[in-house]
Amino acid sequence: MTSPADPADSYADDDGTSLLAPGWAGSPVASATGDRAYLRALLDAEAALTRAQAAVGAAPAEAADAVSGAADPAAFDAGSLAERARAGGNPVIPLVADLTAAVGEPYGPYVHRGATSQDVLDTATTLVAARALDLLLPDLTRTERALARLAAEHRDTPMAGRTLTQHAVPTTFGLKAAGWRTLVLDARDRITAVRNTLPVQLGGAAGTLAALGAYGATDPVALTAAYARELGLRAPLLPWHTLRTPVADLAGCLAFAAGALGKIAADVLTLARTEIGEVAEGSGGGSSAMPHKANPVRSTLIAAAARRAPQLAATLYGSLVAEDERPAGAWHAEWESLRDLLRLTGGAARDAAELTERLRVRPDVMRAHLGLTHGLIVSERLSAELAPVLGRARAKELLTELARRAYREDRPLGELLSDVPELRDSGLDLAALTDPARYTGCAGALTDRALERR
Amino acid sequence: MTSPADPADSYADDDGTSLLAPGWAGSPVASATGDRAYLRALLDAEAALTRAQAAVGAAPAEAADAVSGAADPAAFDAGSLAERARAGGNPVIPLVADLTAAVGEPYGPYVHRGATSQDVLDTATTLVAARALDLLLPDLTRTERALARLAAEHRDTPMAGRTLTQHAVPTTFGLKAAGWRTLVLDARDRITAVRNTLPVQLGGAAGTLAALGAYGATDPVALTAAYARELGLRAPLLPWHTLRTPVADLAGCLAFAAGALGKIAADVLTLARTEIGEVAEGSGGGSSAMPHKANPVRSTLIAAAARRAPQLAATLYGSLVAEDERPAGAWHAEWESLRDLLRLTGGAARDAAELTERLRVRPDVMRAHLGLTHGLIVSERLSAELAPVLGRARAKELLTELARRAYREDRPLGELLSDVPELRDSGLDLAALTDPARYTGCAGALTDRALERR
Amino acid sequence: MTSPADPADSYADDDGTSLLAPGWAGSPVASATGDRAYLRALLDAEAALTRAQAAVGAAPAEAADAVSGAADPAAFDAGSLAERARAGGNPVIPLVADLTAAVGEPYGPYVHRGATSQDVLDTATTLVAARALDLLLPDLTRTERALARLAAEHRDTPMAGRTLTQHAVPTTFGLKAAGWRTLVLDARDRITAVRNTLPVQLGGAAGTLAALGAYGATDPVALTAAYARELGLRAPLLPWHTLRTPVADLAGCLAFAAGALGKIAADVLTLARTEIGEVAEGSGGGSSAMPHKANPVRSTLIAAAARRAPQLAATLYGSLVAEDERPAGAWHAEWESLRDLLRLTGGAARDAAELTERLRVRPDVMRAHLGLTHGLIVSERLSAELAPVLGRARAKELLTELARRAYREDRPLGELLSDVPELRDSGLDLAALTDPARYTGCAGALTDRALERR
Amino acid sequence: MTSPADPADSYADDDGTSLLAPGWAGSPVASATGDRAYLRALLDAEAALTRAQAAVGAAPAEAADAVSGAADPAAFDAGSLAERARAGGNPVIPLVADLTAAVGEPYGPYVHRGATSQDVLDTATTLVAARALDLLLPDLTRTERALARLAAEHRDTPMAGRTLTQHAVPTTFGLKAAGWRTLVLDARDRITAVRNTLPVQLGGAAGTLAALGAYGATDPVALTAAYARELGLRAPLLPWHTLRTPVADLAGCLAFAAGALGKIAADVLTLARTEIGEVAEGSGGGSSAMPHKANPVRSTLIAAAARRAPQLAATLYGSLVAEDERPAGAWHAEWESLRDLLRLTGGAARDAAELTERLRVRPDVMRAHLGLTHGLIVSERLSAELAPVLGRARAKELLTELARRAYREDRPLGELLSDVPELRDSGLDLAALTDPARYTGCAGALTDRALERR
Repeated sequence: MTSPADPADSYADDDGTSLLAPGWAGSPVASATGDRAYLRALLDAEAALTRAQAAVGAAPAEAADAVSGAADPAAFDAGSLAERARAGGNPVIPLVADLTAAVGEPYGPYVHRGATSQDVLDTATTLVAARALDLLLPDLTRTERALARLAAEHRDTPMAGRTLTQHAVPTTFGLKAAGWRTLVLDARDRITAVRNTLPVQLGGAAGTLAALGAYGATDPVALTAAYARELGLRAPLLPWHTLRTPVADLAGCLAFAAGALGKIAADVLTLARTEIGEVAEGSGGGSSAMPHKANPVRSTLIAAAARRAPQLAATLYGSLVAEDERPAGAWHAEWESLRDLLRLTGGAARDAAELTERLRVRPDVMRAHLGLTHGLIVSERLSAELAPVLGRARAKELLTELARRAYREDRPLGELLSDVPELRDSGLDLAALTDPARYTGCAGALTDRALERR
Repeated sequence: MTSPADPADSYADDDGTSLLAPGWAGSPVASATGDRAYLRALLDAEAALTRAQAAVGAAPAEAADAVSGAADPAAFDAGSLAERARAGGNPVIPLVADLTAAVGEPYGPYVHRGATSQDVLDTATTLVAARALDLLLPDLTRTERALARLAAEHRDTPMAGRTLTQHAVPTTFGLKAAGWRTLVLDARDRITAVRNTLPVQLGGAAGTLAALGAYGATDPVALTAAYARELGLRAPLLPWHTLRTPVADLAGCLAFAAGALGKIAADVLTLARTEIGEVAEGSGGGSSAMPHKANPVRSTLIAAAARRAPQLAATLYGSLVAEDERPAGAWHAEWESLRDLLRLTGGAARDAAELTERLRVRPDVMRAHLGLTHGLIVSERLSAELAPVLGRARAKELLTELARRAYREDRPLGELLSDVPELRDSGLDLAALTDPARYTGCAGALTDRALERR
Repeated sequence: MTSPADPADSYADDDGTSLLAPGWAGSPVASATGDRAYLRALLDAEAALTRAQAAVGAAPAEAADAVSGAADPAAFDAGSLAERARAGGNPVIPLVADLTAAVGEPYGPYVHRGATSQDVLDTATTLVAARALDLLLPDLTRTERALARLAAEHRDTPMAGRTLTQHAVPTTFGLKAAGWRTLVLDARDRITAVRNTLPVQLGGAAGTLAALGAYGATDPVALTAAYARELGLRAPLLPWHTLRTPVADLAGCLAFAAGALGKIAADVLTLARTEIGEVAEGSGGGSSAMPHKANPVRSTLIAAAARRAPQLAATLYGSLVAEDERPAGAWHAEWESLRDLLRLTGGAARDAAELTERLRVRPDVMRAHLGLTHGLIVSERLSAELAPVLGRARAKELLTELARRAYREDRPLGELLSDVPELRDSGLDLAALTDPARYTGCAGALTDRALERR
Repeated sequence: MTSPADPADSYADDDGTSLLAPGWAGSPVASATGDRAYLRALLDAEAALTRAQAAVGAAPAEAADAVSGAADPAAFDAGSLAERARAGGNPVIPLVADLTAAVGEPYGPYVHRGATSQDVLDTATTLVAARALDLLLPDLTRTERALARLAAEHRDTPMAGRTLTQHAVPTTFGLKAAGWRTLVLDARDRITAVRNTLPVQLGGAAGTLAALGAYGATDPVALTAAYARELGLRAPLLPWHTLRTPVADLAGCLAFAAGALGKIAADVLTLARTEIGEVAEGSGGGSSAMPHKANPVRSTLIAAAARRAPQLAATLYGSLVAEDERPAGAWHAEWESLRDLLRLTGGAARDAAELTERLRVRPDVMRAHLGLTHGLIVSERLSAELAPVLGRARAKELLTELARRAYREDRPLGELLSDVPELRDSGLDLAALTDPARYTGCAGALTDRALERR
């Protein structure tokens, strides 16, 4: 199948770009999910259906050629179809009318023969999803590679570990980047798994393939397999008109991906704050009146996507509750929700690739911040190391007192400790023990291990 | 302000119509929420801002005229703005650049002077919302009027009351329609209340109006009031960059309206089932291959909207959590969510108006179904009426036995009762007591009362 | 009605406290929403129903006394009721059985006479909601008062205004606190409005009040009014078994309140970060191993509530779509969702009261941070003020150059400006113009105005 | 590990049973997710941690024995822990204090040594989830087996296929049941996959395992592996304090399962309607006043769970956005949401097992309803079969006319067709062609195929 990102694609300008959607405007996924992309997928589905019937001997090869030839998106008026979709509640009804007319006699009657609107719309939807995911996955790969580089480069860059907004103990930027990457790989794996199972839909009016059989395709397995082959999708075990596993699976993997990228954005937004400044976006959005402002725009747009995705996924999970052989509402609620979710996640993936590839990291600022708590960021370690020397009770008492003094006297804990007579001859290397950069635990080893994952 | 539904409106064809959105395609609200409608509102906001500054003496009248004259949506390229919005993360930044260029010297510098992007985008958003609600409300009024007619006409049309899918006791279609109308009025009242409080936004870079003051508008109350007057919106107590009450209020009233209409749709979908057939949509969507099908398409599309609206509202309520003086993500997550919610609810209101105005009601079918339980639909009444005559224990025993026999022998309960010797001389009018149509309780009085509400 | 917070209340220990719910454990709302509180409300509803029937002459006063006397929560086994609720799907069925047995002859038959389970469960729900809101509102009042004090005290405390995480222009802590308070007042007003309209439910099996009439209560208005009077709730226009306005209204006001408090928490969490430290919670949660940690626990728990509330509200808005005269699922989905929402919001209100009453504010740190951008935080002002002196083009060029130098040379902008020859005799008070504390715009006036709201 | 469903389990009565939760009251999952189950899991996690440290030589075996011996849930006061959790915002802090005291000297200091609260709470959460899923999966298996039986038994039971609430073409109950089963198997597979990857959590204060190393466990891989072995969980690649893949995966599979069961419930609710009556729940909830009512209570409660699950999952997906090394709110928002989701889905699985095992199917009613459209339910077939005989245009014209007459004259289509002269000698077997039971397409073959899946 032709890539929808083909620069020669004449529908590439119909990417659903909207004034209110800077997050996905102009992204690869945008052009793969626009109205023209759906129109193309709908026509691809119709043409493949006739070809599949021809393949199993239920239609003449000429009919397949005629329908395939007529199924040219450029010949159809998406706006008109959209309006006429209102009457019957879906766009396939007017599309079949227009396509049948375009094919003309004698092969017009082979258009959509034996199928139901949902067969074509669901197949087009998985086709659009497959094409969109094929464009989204490379951006996840760009992201994980950029993060792998950052993690390797900053394997030993110490920084404050923060919990509940407060400095806890040191960590490294390498481990943080490795963690981000792990999430991106988790997203990639989940999306890839779902991508590879996306099925065609073929069931006829109520999922029994009865009319398809009446028109000569008596072996549903063979017909569905041929249909799937034509489109590069999977053949499902059963028609899934109201067994919405593929849509729910898409919801899950996309919500996961948006959330995974949202975690990265949340961290960048925090670390890029004016007071923190440990990282900066490579190309912050500026402000003419305020030249000092370099807004973390990429992170902001990812964060916005991550706020919306879970609720869109909830609507899709809710549509599992689809009554009868075709539901009155649950199916219809999926269409825009899934498109929006693809777009938001696709846009976030592009922004994440740019964000991570251009991220500026400031080890010196990270290092400086490790001193903000007067050395108390290593108090956990001192609790562990002083107890054997002083006894637990005395160690605790001492640390509590020195912690208070460190803040009151604005002196580093290490300095105060070196004044403690009991510790002078303890053999403890107080300089080492109180150096935050030397209390990063297994951060390096964990980073190495995480980077082994491909 | 000019109505966006004005037939001469050159942007009316930019209504965001989509192949996947039959629910709102071509609806009044669609054209009021398209990219051109937003563009117009953004320009209206910019022009009004300069005029407001002129009104308080902080800009020359000529500047106001120049900006107002240049703020013609036809002169701007929405697609280009959408793409350029990516860099800074919002469409106002490129719009200000283009508008400033369009105004030229000497008044270009008065464009957007002292304002921040959010002032203009938020104001445009409330402007779009106000315009959209002004188009949505008449559809709610059409709906409630149609329902008032149905309720009055069917005040005494008995039908089965159903609970947990089973016949319970009789009710009337009039009471059901009156209940639907009550929900629509509740929606209208909530939307109207929110509509009337929609504010302009004006705060400058961080909500202090500092730059506006630096440019000469020293009285924030006067400036904001002038701005609000220009646009027919309310002046807020404070800039609300991160005090998102107006957006949350919109979310609440729109989710309410979608749900209220969804209740009507759910009932119509049930009552229109092939086996029930007590109502039918006036213009069902047909199927060429299945001529007996008259799909309840309007209800289906309303039901789909009602499935999506709560989650869109959840995103908007979630955006109340907007950190600092402008949040990095929460604000951006609102834009499309609110537009979608306006469209879905607006489309549902149009569909509800058509649905209720054309609804076909079948009192004979309703009447016939009252007999489906062999008269047991009035067993509650018989429990009440027979107890004084027979004693509670005996009455219960008798009813339990006769209920069993009614089903087994396929005979109506009334007939079986008339064979019971103890009841022959009881003076009870068994025919009346077992007539479901005479056991509708206060349905009529409740209907009358509900219809008094305007 | 007795306050559920009465210290003598024997059910006060049944507050649904859970290991996983530190956010509302032990809060006033917790004890008002526990199983015993619901049991009490269910019994209150049953007793009030019989009393209302007596009041309109449809039951003997002795029956009302007998039922009221027996309706003592201490005499019922909530655990057993919960288990037996499974069979019929709601707890009222077994409760009526137990209460009838407890009343015994001759008045047992008056228990629940003519009513349906939903009448009692819905009424108990609004009763619980009313009681819970009566406990929640005082915590909102405590919060707004604390914020009013903070706003007044810090009316002129300058701090950095932050947008998209970056310093923008100065603002004041007073204006920030006044903004927080405005949201709290908005929440209070929305909750109060809903609180005051909470209705009883009374409709009988299918909302026609038929059985109630059969048992002698022929005037539904009078009966419902008497019922409402007994419970201190409102009489609804219609039975609302499937007209769920009251529940949706509760959802909306509670989600709003949780979000409003979530905004405050988000700001405190940011401002309390180790690197920022402009505020601190008065009683941070400590860590024995890390004595420097003072976790902002109150804000954290509020933030958690604000993350959950919108989705709980979405479920409740979704339950507006309630088919027939009683839905099979939509109603049941409301119960725990509403309870959780009351608890989360109630817990957040308590935490917000404690948070704001004890918040420590550090004006000196705020002041120091205004210098972090080398004075560029006032560049917006300088753009405005230098243009008339130097011309716009030259002013912009100069500021761009000095901004670059300020960072490169680590010198304040004001100092660099004073070296510019063109400005020496300009008459501009450069010290004033570059003092962030003197560029807070209308912050003071806006704060005063906001504090006038009561 | 001991099964939490062990009848001798003294905490089995602490199952979180609530008056408002008939859906999961008394279910296996309820007792596995109550406060005592969490308390047990927390203590299991603490004991396993000390044992793991002993296993890698970082603690004496005696300490492991002492902690394991003291970690007896019966010795702890869950209510007190819940209240004390408020101060620090999580229950582990007071639990560690109590457990340390219970262990006493000399091994008390080994309790929780080097760990952070999140290590223990996250591990307890996955432990509870694993135990709950182990109880939930058998109910899914019961359900799929019951459905397999129904599908096999009704492989050739024809019934109306319904789309958008209207009869479309025939299908079989066997295919419907096979479809339901496919969803249940999809749910089982997704849950099983997630179950088998549930990891322990071990990272120390900021995910570097630094303190664990300081106390002697220098090999993080070995320590974590030992910890996982002790608990029968997986060892994660990295500490996942803010890499929430396991929780998001749980959200996805549980929302899927709830939705899958919700589809079955939606169908049963429809088919059990008084007017349809093609199936009935085996043990409907009764109503004393209305003896004819057999409410589909199991389906109702499943439907309620399916309405809530997506939004709970949305909150969990939202918590992927977890800033820093431990977030201030996102983590806390997970706890109750995940518990609720486990309970709702667990309760729904139990109800689904009962529902499907006891479902009463009425083939005669199904058969009778196939005639409701006067034979038009096979019009699709006739379009296909008559066209070759009459020509497409004439066939369509004829069918349209006869469809109209069938309704007007209340006669079956087959009868009308047999009067058509052109068809008398066509050789078409009109009786067969118009028999809905012979137009079920590939329903049988699809059913067989679906049943092969294990």
